[in-house]
Amino acid sequence: MNKEELHELLHPIKLIGLGGNPVLNEKIASILDKPLLETTVHHFSDGEIQVNISESVRGCDVYVIQSLQDPVNESFMELEIVLDALHRASAHSVNCVIPYLAYSRSDTKSRSREPITAKLIANLLQLTGMDRLLTIDLHASQIQGFYNVPVDHLHAMPLLAQYFLDNGIATKEDEDIVVVSPDHSGAKLARNFATYFDCPIAIVDQRGERYGMDTNDIIGDVKGKKCIIVDDLIDTGSRVESSTKSVLAAGATKVYVAATHTLLSQNAIERLNGLQIEQIVVTDTIKHKRYPDRMVRVSVAQLLARGIDYLYHDRSIHELFDEQNRLK
Amino acid sequence: MNKEELHELLHPIKLIGLGGNPVLNEKIASILDKPLLETTVHHFSDGEIQVNISESVRGCDVYVIQSLQDPVNESFMELEIVLDALHRASAHSVNCVIPYLAYSRSDTKSRSREPITAKLIANLLQLTGMDRLLTIDLHASQIQGFYNVPVDHLHAMPLLAQYFLDNGIATKEDEDIVVVSPDHSGAKLARNFATYFDCPIAIVDQRGERYGMDTNDIIGDVKGKKCIIVDDLIDTGSRVESSTKSVLAAGATKVYVAATHTLLSQNAIERLNGLQIEQIVVTDTIKHKRYPDRMVRVSVAQLLARGIDYLYHDRSIHELFDEQNRLK
Amino acid sequence: MNKEELHELLHPIKLIGLGGNPVLNEKIASILDKPLLETTVHHFSDGEIQVNISESVRGCDVYVIQSLQDPVNESFMELEIVLDALHRASAHSVNCVIPYLAYSRSDTKSRSREPITAKLIANLLQLTGMDRLLTIDLHASQIQGFYNVPVDHLHAMPLLAQYFLDNGIATKEDEDIVVVSPDHSGAKLARNFATYFDCPIAIVDQRGERYGMDTNDIIGDVKGKKCIIVDDLIDTGSRVESSTKSVLAAGATKVYVAATHTLLSQNAIERLNGLQIEQIVVTDTIKHKRYPDRMVRVSVAQLLARGIDYLYHDRSIHELFDEQNRLK
Amino acid sequence: MNKEELHELLHPIKLIGLGGNPVLNEKIASILDKPLLETTVHHFSDGEIQVNISESVRGCDVYVIQSLQDPVNESFMELEIVLDALHRASAHSVNCVIPYLAYSRSDTKSRSREPITAKLIANLLQLTGMDRLLTIDLHASQIQGFYNVPVDHLHAMPLLAQYFLDNGIATKEDEDIVVVSPDHSGAKLARNFATYFDCPIAIVDQRGERYGMDTNDIIGDVKGKKCIIVDDLIDTGSRVESSTKSVLAAGATKVYVAATHTLLSQNAIERLNGLQIEQIVVTDTIKHKRYPDRMVRVSVAQLLARGIDYLYHDRSIHELFDEQNRLK
Amino acid sequence: MNKEELHELLHPIKLIGLGGNPVLNEKIASILDKPLLETTVHHFSDGEIQVNISESVRGCDVYVIQSLQDPVNESFMELEIVLDALHRASAHSVNCVIPYLAYSRSDTKSRSREPITAKLIANLLQLTGMDRLLTIDLHASQIQGFYNVPVDHLHAMPLLAQYFLDNGIATKEDEDIVVVSPDHSGAKLARNFATYFDCPIAIVDQRGERYGMDTNDIIGDVKGKKCIIVDDLIDTGSRVESSTKSVLAAGATKVYVAATHTLLSQNAIERLNGLQIEQIVVTDTIKHKRYPDRMVRVSVAQLLARGIDYLYHDRSIHELFDEQNRLK
Amino acid sequence: MNKEELHELLHPIKLIGLGGNPVLNEKIASILDKPLLETTVHHFSDGEIQVNISESVRGCDVYVIQSLQDPVNESFMELEIVLDALHRASAHSVNCVIPYLAYSRSDTKSRSREPITAKLIANLLQLTGMDRLLTIDLHASQIQGFYNVPVDHLHAMPLLAQYFLDNGIATKEDEDIVVVSPDHSGAKLARNFATYFDCPIAIVDQRGERYGMDTNDIIGDVKGKKCIIVDDLIDTGSRVESSTKSVLAAGATKVYVAATHTLLSQNAIERLNGLQIEQIVVTDTIKHKRYPDRMVRVSVAQLLARGIDYLYHDRSIHELFDEQNRLK
Repeated sequence: MNKEELHELLHPIKLIGLGGNPVLNEKIASILDKPLLETTVHHFSDGEIQVNISESVRGCDVYVIQSLQDPVNESFMELEIVLDALHRASAHSVNCVIPYLAYSRSDTKSRSREPITAKLIANLLQLTGMDRLLTIDLHASQIQGFYNVPVDHLHAMPLLAQYFLDNGIATKEDEDIVVVSPDHSGAKLARNFATYFDCPIAIVDQRGERYGMDTNDIIGDVKGKKCIIVDDLIDTGSRVESSTKSVLAAGATKVYVAATHTLLSQNAIERLNGLQIEQIVVTDTIKHKRYPDRMVRVSVAQLLARGIDYLYHDRSIHELFDEQNRLK
Repeated sequence: MNKEELHELLHPIKLIGLGGNPVLNEKIASILDKPLLETTVHHFSDGEIQVNISESVRGCDVYVIQSLQDPVNESFMELEIVLDALHRASAHSVNCVIPYLAYSRSDTKSRSREPITAKLIANLLQLTGMDRLLTIDLHASQIQGFYNVPVDHLHAMPLLAQYFLDNGIATKEDEDIVVVSPDHSGAKLARNFATYFDCPIAIVDQRGERYGMDTNDIIGDVKGKKCIIVDDLIDTGSRVESSTKSVLAAGATKVYVAATHTLLSQNAIERLNGLQIEQIVVTDTIKHKRYPDRMVRVSVAQLLARGIDYLYHDRSIHELFDEQNRLK
Repeated sequence: MNKEELHELLHPIKLIGLGGNPVLNEKIASILDKPLLETTVHHFSDGEIQVNISESVRGCDVYVIQSLQDPVNESFMELEIVLDALHRASAHSVNCVIPYLAYSRSDTKSRSREPITAKLIANLLQLTGMDRLLTIDLHASQIQGFYNVPVDHLHAMPLLAQYFLDNGIATKEDEDIVVVSPDHSGAKLARNFATYFDCPIAIVDQRGERYGMDTNDIIGDVKGKKCIIVDDLIDTGSRVESSTKSVLAAGATKVYVAATHTLLSQNAIERLNGLQIEQIVVTDTIKHKRYPDRMVRVSVAQLLARGIDYLYHDRSIHELFDEQNRLK
Repeated sequence: MNKEELHELLHPIKLIGLGGNPVLNEKIASILDKPLLETTVHHFSDGEIQVNISESVRGCDVYVIQSLQDPVNESFMELEIVLDALHRASAHSVNCVIPYLAYSRSDTKSRSREPITAKLIANLLQLTGMDRLLTIDLHASQIQGFYNVPVDHLHAMPLLAQYFLDNGIATKEDEDIVVVSPDHSGAKLARNFATYFDCPIAIVDQRGERYGMDTNDIIGDVKGKKCIIVDDLIDTGSRVESSTKSVLAAGATKVYVAATHTLLSQNAIERLNGLQIEQIVVTDTIKHKRYPDRMVRVSVAQLLARGIDYLYHDRSIHELFDEQNRLK
Repeated sequence: MNKEELHELLHPIKLIGLGGNPVLNEKIASILDKPLLETTVHHFSDGEIQVNISESVRGCDVYVIQSLQDPVNESFMELEIVLDALHRASAHSVNCVIPYLAYSRSDTKSRSREPITAKLIANLLQLTGMDRLLTIDLHASQIQGFYNVPVDHLHAMPLLAQYFLDNGIATKEDEDIVVVSPDHSGAKLARNFATYFDCPIAIVDQRGERYGMDTNDIIGDVKGKKCIIVDDLIDTGSRVESSTKSVLAAGATKVYVAATHTLLSQNAIERLNGLQIEQIVVTDTIKHKRYPDRMVRVSVAQLLARGIDYLYHDRSIHELFDEQNRLK
Repeated sequence: MNKEELHELLHPIKLIGLGGNPVLNEKIASILDKPLLETTVHHFSDGEIQVNISESVRGCDVYVIQSLQDPVNESFMELEIVLDALHRASAHSVNCVIPYLAYSRSDTKSRSREPITAKLIANLLQLTGMDRLLTIDLHASQIQGFYNVPVDHLHAMPLLAQYFLDNGIATKEDEDIVVVSPDHSGAKLARNFATYFDCPIAIVDQRGERYGMDTNDIIGDVKGKKCIIVDDLIDTGSRVESSTKSVLAAGATKVYVAATHTLLSQNAIERLNGLQIEQIVVTDTIKHKRYPDRMVRVSVAQLLARGIDYLYHDRSIHELFDEQNRLK
């Protein structure tokens, strides 16, 4: 018997898929070739949640997949209650796989009497005995430090970059491309994304509003270039909107958007449909009923499945990063 | 300066009213003659909650009033986030006033792999640094023991009994009344309630279903009597329904219902309206948009306001109980 | 090698039997076919306790059996000190098997400045690194929620019911039997016990004292029936006494008693001997030097041994419940 | 109003006296001119303890006095349960005054699988929310480090030395006196005690038993001298016995004994009565029903009362030490 | 008596100044008009640290000022040991004032098996019972979320901006100025700093090295402008060097530097002296033996003194921010 | 497969050697026949420490060897940071091997406002998730009780005694030898050491200074004897100096010194070289650049290697003690 077989015998892996993104859950389970545990989560008419896990998890390594998408608080409480149940049911380890970790933007106290909800979420998850967190593209990588348990933080940007390369939109050394950050905070992400195409970056200087203008100045040069606006998250789409208008006003020829997570809240779909964007390339960390036109969804299922597999078998997640970086 | 003045100077009291029961919050504040702190709780279009507390709480004793009514999980996360904000804003003490503590029925593990959500709620509340809990009529008094912080547990039953006495429905020694427990677990509560009228009790033996009958046997004698069915909680109303039908079938002349909390979930209103009940006497711990006919709501505002006042001024809550018991 | 063999090789099971019930400890060990670890617990002349564990427990799964019987506090401190020793001796897991968990009646704060000793006990046990608790018939099932570690809560009632069936005292559908709860709080337990015989229940309405009477009213009908008074615990026997007298006064033909735990404190033996009871059927969770006449002790050794075996081998304790329920 | 008055108004002091040394409790209360709170501690016939505190402690600084004397485990559980009750009753601070801290000799792991019970006691006391510990002459001063809360550690040796000076047994520079340590571990204590008389020390070399002899060698010179054997604790008296015989055999003229705590377990009284000792000078940290002949008990009430007073009024306990040292 | 007087009477403020920046400590104490407590910190010849606090702190609110400057680990352990001493000496509250919080750059896990030392520092500080942290310009504001205790995070940027305005280097609406971020991560800081002059920003695109060039491209326009390079920290000065050379190569007319903290490690002084920079404007959070030419040190003493004063008197630190923002 | 093979397969052992005693680290690794993990610890020019662990430790049992020698605080922070990294890198267990545990002399609070740094060190180490501590000759064995994790405490005294026996300096029953404690606190250690030679002991009565004398009285008889002065630690050597002079003045013929740890701080080397000592026998727990003349260093590598091996393979460390005691 080798180490992997031993581990599987002693602490079998069990997958639980919760919430609003069952397609992603199923994909991950299918790649890992393991069934999702039959788990019913009942939201009662009075609003309380009841969970029912169909089979024993005593001594097992359980991976619970839950994207904290809208309704965020319901999703979060679902997860907490399942963690409590698994803990009391004597699981050997409880590992959370949270493709989209909500509340990550609330990561600092910028005004008086503000909570730091991302830290609250971290404390609440750890209270219920989570052993490890696997997630994708945190809003700020410092959020890892909110946790005392190990956090493995995967990156979807290589997947998005690969899409642009595979579909002939950009090349590895591309003089026509400029990667655009929609605001100052995103400059570092833009710089990273630009390394896949060895191209320059530009930044939308979000000051237009201050002077009552529709568009903003661009720091850097986009004239005559194809722009890829890159962000970690599309929420209402308003930042994409002002950025798109600004780069077009500054002479960009074509606009693409790349982002990991899509909330599509308020009238985001209509807003995005109204813009002159070639393609919006995102991942499937969050599932919606409908999507904007020209939105392409690249799946993170393979990435997460391999992450789970590496963790379960005590392999360094580093190797996964190395592979991802190879395309640079 | 006396002790109370000193305390008020050093640690002023601040009231925060959250959630779906603003009328109750306002009543409490009005009785205490203190304003509710201006607090905005914003539920974003993506489902996340943001709170904003308008004035400094540094060094203050803060009392946060939140009934955990539907939508339960939203209400609960609101409360958690406000607690985090108050803690980081250096409040001197943070006290929760939760008239209805949801999830209290999930207080034990009755099947395999079941969570004990009432304990989870206790752990989560204490994590965020709650100093004390004031609540009314817990589903089981053992839930106090789920907390390491002091829990002050008030009783609404004396208020409900008082209503029956004040309105001439029952007297202090009433030969016409039988207090009825709708199931076996409630026998102790019924016995307590019956002491206000020095009357006998009866129990609905919930076994009718087992034999395919519409009504259940009654343990004890209700023939020719006025029955007061008493429970801590009306959820869907189905237990009230079967109890009402059963006591009427057993010869009861009139039926009243007394309960502390009302969830009125599913089609409870229609169900209750269809029953031959004289009055349903409840409290205002939970607010709804509409109520069943013949439902009378006795306010707990005075009770809670006095509880807060006693706690803030280090008076024994015991004296409050003594007063309540005087009418027995 | 299969999973069980692997586990036994890596983390051998070790049994420790403490305290005043060595017969039960031996029975359990004998059923599991494992020796009890040689452990000396010395109570010094100055009152301090010293423990000595004879062999290494490094890396082992240890199960410590200790019924918290009189002298309760000595028994409890013995257990705490052994847990500290096992923790410092690097046991792989430390599991408590506590057939009778003392102080469980102190599970709520019913008057001012009262402790919740059952919660204190829970906190103290968990402090010393207990990984899991296995116990029988808690006074209130909510006590499970006092613990953050998994609690497996076995039921002795099926064993007691089986005795009545096996000895021809009752049958599965018995029209002659009434199960009697000695007070209002026990109505639910009585209802559960009655399902084994598909019979009605009655409740002793403990109000006689209030009116200076020797006996109490009975809610429900016992006339001409055999009564089985059922309770979780016999302490001084006074509740059994008043119940027995009351049902006989109400026309019962014969009286039996069923209870899980027996404290037999004060003059319980004499009191019980003086009553007109056919049989008192209890378990052996607590050992005494002598017992009342007509007391039958059903052993829980098999139940606990199987519980330990299931826990050690990561089998769901649920299956054990299923078996128990099969006789219903 | 000055600081002390303010503090007394905001957080009144309350004294609770538990257990087997009521005389000491009363003395302390009397010196502080404060009543002992009426507290009943009931040991039930089944061994469980119930406590009842007669008046409100909300917002008060409570000092609980309990010497952990025989029966040690009962005394300890009494204390734990009272601490839980005080915590739940919202005391402002809970301070333990433990004149004799039992289990202090179990302060290290000297053999395999041994507990460190002194650390266990520390953890258990802190779990229940003790804010501070005041004690006398710990067996090893390192035990302070077992606690994370402040420990104030008073010394009774100056009181004992004062007795010898006041009664003309020894003088400040005494050529006739030798202070004797009954074993090697006590050499440091003996050296400290000797500074009050500026005299030499000697050590009983406990090896006689190894060579089958009744007496031991003495390291140092006792011939023709008055010996004061000094120890922190007299348990069974066997160490005092062998020391007395040894110093007499080595030519000592008279023997005195000084010790802080007296357990007098087993046949200690008879043993000590049989020895040729002039006086045995101890304190009243522990109360017994009877004492050996020629035992003088110096009270620590004044010392503890002042310690409590200093703590309550935020004065440095250092000043108390300074006073104590003045007589050197 | 008003609230402030009361608080000062009950919990007097005590200041402790540690470590390598005594000038700053003295300035703060002088502004607050309170003496620094006499505290000796002795580093023994074997490397261990011993502290000695000269006067009682029982019941006091203590503010410990320690900039974690080189030797960082010595400074940190000094602080930890003082915190332990204060905690055991029964201080009412222990507040850390850490002008420069070392290890803040280690705030995320960017490679395998990397620690998150900023989180470790947070955990270690909180372990010793720190009640609150006051600091200046954290490397990432998310580090606030590493703490469960309140963190008040002051900004030195307004002080630095004020210097530029006061000395006529820049005006409130300055067309000649460009604020330059030395890398992509700093774009947001640069944008904030630029609001004081309502001027554009530029970013040094740190890719020169990749192509073997001495200088980097500039994103944005600096030609013919005065540049203010802004950063939170000057360590070895190499980032300032490449940025200065790059903006000069891109046509900037003059270069200024603004930064909060200065580590000046390795040969930073020589490197900075060799550059064509008009002025380097920094604060005095860190003290060195010598400084580069043309370095101007603006003191944060007033800012910290007011922060301490606001915290001690329960005033919202928000008002301090408001003042700071007024100059915008 | 046997148990040991299984454990090695599931949780391979990894050794990490830190700090200033690489020779000892290498010796231990060599005896265990396992490589030291390639670990770089970089002390930056600004004083911060960065660590880099070269290979995956997921699922491994890691043993980190670090002697807390000068610079103590740097060594300690190195260890803390490595522990954090290992924890976040998902090691299965993290075990500290600390041959010399600094700050152990700071184990009690002897004056007002003193820290208990040995307890602080214990708390800090446990915070970062240390699973177990292996160390040698603690200054006081009570320090074990500062930890909640298991502490295995090895003794070097048998190794030192063996040296004296092997080299013919002393025999098992030696009438010429006296073991000397340099002060009163060390009497117990001296007594233990003397059992190897079945010889008497003497104590240096450190009071000479008080009377302005160069030497001290000796309690016990050393005239005409070979003295072995024994201590746990040689720091500045001043205690060895005064003891050597005192025993020589009292007529000792030859002086030897035995000690476990050597700090050699201040001018210890010169001081020791100036004394009339035959040999100073110590261990290699601490490495220095140079040593006094006539110092012999006995290696603890074998002892620690076996300790690690026993722990890793779940064997009782007791057996190691037994072997050590065999030579007595």
